[in-house]
Amino acid sequence: MKTIYLDNAATTRVLQTAADAMLEYAREKYYNPSAGYRAALEVRHDMADAAGVIASVIGADPHEIVFTSCATESNNHVFSCGVKNKKGNVVISAVEHASVYESAMRLKSKGADVRIVDPDPNGRVTAEKIAAAVDENTAFVSVIHCSNETGVINDIAAISSAVKAIAPKAVIHSDGVQAFCKIPVNVKALGVDLYSMSAHKVGGMKGTGALYIRNGFNMQPFIAGGGQQDGRRSGTENVCGIMSFAAAAAAYRNAARSFDANALRNIFVERFGSGELSRINGGSPNSGYIVSISFRGLKGEIIAHEMDDRGIMIGLGSACSTHIRSNRVLGSMGVPKEFAEGSVRISFSPRTTEDDARTAADALDEITKDLRQRTGR
Amino acid sequence: MKTIYLDNAATTRVLQTAADAMLEYAREKYYNPSAGYRAALEVRHDMADAAGVIASVIGADPHEIVFTSCATESNNHVFSCGVKNKKGNVVISAVEHASVYESAMRLKSKGADVRIVDPDPNGRVTAEKIAAAVDENTAFVSVIHCSNETGVINDIAAISSAVKAIAPKAVIHSDGVQAFCKIPVNVKALGVDLYSMSAHKVGGMKGTGALYIRNGFNMQPFIAGGGQQDGRRSGTENVCGIMSFAAAAAAYRNAARSFDANALRNIFVERFGSGELSRINGGSPNSGYIVSISFRGLKGEIIAHEMDDRGIMIGLGSACSTHIRSNRVLGSMGVPKEFAEGSVRISFSPRTTEDDARTAADALDEITKDLRQRTGR
Repeated sequence: MKTIYLDNAATTRVLQTAADAMLEYAREKYYNPSAGYRAALEVRHDMADAAGVIASVIGADPHEIVFTSCATESNNHVFSCGVKNKKGNVVISAVEHASVYESAMRLKSKGADVRIVDPDPNGRVTAEKIAAAVDENTAFVSVIHCSNETGVINDIAAISSAVKAIAPKAVIHSDGVQAFCKIPVNVKALGVDLYSMSAHKVGGMKGTGALYIRNGFNMQPFIAGGGQQDGRRSGTENVCGIMSFAAAAAAYRNAARSFDANALRNIFVERFGSGELSRINGGSPNSGYIVSISFRGLKGEIIAHEMDDRGIMIGLGSACSTHIRSNRVLGSMGVPKEFAEGSVRISFSPRTTEDDARTAADALDEITKDLRQRTGR
Repeated sequence: MKTIYLDNAATTRVLQTAADAMLEYAREKYYNPSAGYRAALEVRHDMADAAGVIASVIGADPHEIVFTSCATESNNHVFSCGVKNKKGNVVISAVEHASVYESAMRLKSKGADVRIVDPDPNGRVTAEKIAAAVDENTAFVSVIHCSNETGVINDIAAISSAVKAIAPKAVIHSDGVQAFCKIPVNVKALGVDLYSMSAHKVGGMKGTGALYIRNGFNMQPFIAGGGQQDGRRSGTENVCGIMSFAAAAAAYRNAARSFDANALRNIFVERFGSGELSRINGGSPNSGYIVSISFRGLKGEIIAHEMDDRGIMIGLGSACSTHIRSNRVLGSMGVPKEFAEGSVRISFSPRTTEDDARTAADALDEITKDLRQRTGR
């Protein structure tokens, strides 16, 4: 039985080029980049080159990139250190990743005025709705670039403009994990001060992330100590992870250029997007890399389990929310409960073939029909 | 020319067994441990086994181990979230690693009463001196187990007892990075609530650390989000790093059992420990893995550079303090300035041979004598 990976985590398994980079820096160039001798200096230069690769993908300068241990750390960093005006209010969308949402909830528990903006029924966070929540005292705004649940792309440039028209000093952050290397990104055009990225969503090693910090935007480091990375993030750098991140990003971006994710997504949209028994959550514009499907009256866990039995790995929603029971994001989009509980999330990578997608859609069709027969739903 | 690694970072280059583990989880078992299907569950089990290995080295239970991105994160975590009684005072030693020292300075800048205790002239932090700084309002005490600058071992058990006799509710943390796998450690006998460790000091990958959190000791996660690691540290786990950490720890501990680090250290102590032109910083008890040598009137950078020319990698002090000019630790021990500026740090690992150590000692002798001739010092 061929195994088909359509889970967001599994589709992004470590690319060969990334594993090679990792091994090179584990076995040969294992020097601590902070050490004083020449061999260590070379590693420092290689890391600067890696920052250059990440920067080039998002239209930034290399020194605007800080490496972190994951996007979750990047997101905690911006909420812990990026919200400078403690008296100002904070605006986020309801469809943020858990690491943004929980960071905002932590601020709220400390007394901050945190405003949560619902998306429209298509899962899109609009500039109009964000603007309605912003006032002249808004200190910080965070809106996800591309939804990790639905693939929907938010117009961050329009959101930035709308926010700055009302609160010119507001800091703007976007979680770009699901956009990075998948859709064109230019942080200058987006008008953001901070932008989060992750290695393992593009075929790099788990345990590596990055944070774009706009030139001239000063904030305290989240992790203090030896002053690595120009004092912006202390701790010995994860050299293997960083070098694998750059290698993966370069390879993934190239592969993504000739990959039509929306063509694969449409296979599922056409099959499950109409009718009374199933629905597609989230509309256009869409990265195409993610499709969220809900089956009325069924349980997502059971569907995923039966798919697993057939060698097809799919997810239920963000793997980062496995530990949380209900789906906050689908709820905010107004997906009725009888649909929300029967939701699965399917993800694609440039390695996914049309055959894989059709096989998975067929299996999903059979399994859900069979479940309905057995349970009378 | 044979290259000899006597820099703390280089001696701990990634062990073969750790690199193998890393590669296995990059190329085969690359599943996100939070995903729902069986293959991911296996990775979750493997990570629990890895926690078991780390726990067994320090006499802890497996579920008392939380994986972090580095010991610097572990140390930031304990200062950010472990100091619960905000009105209480904080006591640290003057010989702490930069990540502890800077975290304490951050608390101080927020108004906390931070008390810094000097070591004795041998570099040892005594229970008596700590007790003298503690009072009934002490909330938190942090003392390094084994000094990263001098190798000196502090009697953490005696320090814990002395603290608890005065402030029974005080939280006790020890930075165990340089003790882990090198000297016997039992966190229960040490009487600590929190204990920090790092993978890359025992031949694991850079970018992985751990924090022992005593059973029953509850604290907020440092990084919030998807609730990974039982809600104690969010963010997709660095599976490759974690598995390499466990593999390295097991191998390093075994190798350390038949390795007499103090025998190598004594080669340098005998050569440079007496006389007016050089001194050994730090006394006994000593792990033997580190030796700090100061040469009066010379510059450590120049000595290290000339050693590098001969293929011998040594350090100046903590690589994590390369970005900081003066040596705070040596200063606190009362090392006179004319000696402190001429300091180098040499580190050993179980892979260091007696021949390597003697070659390095000879080179150091020649280089410093030659420098004195050339400069007239």
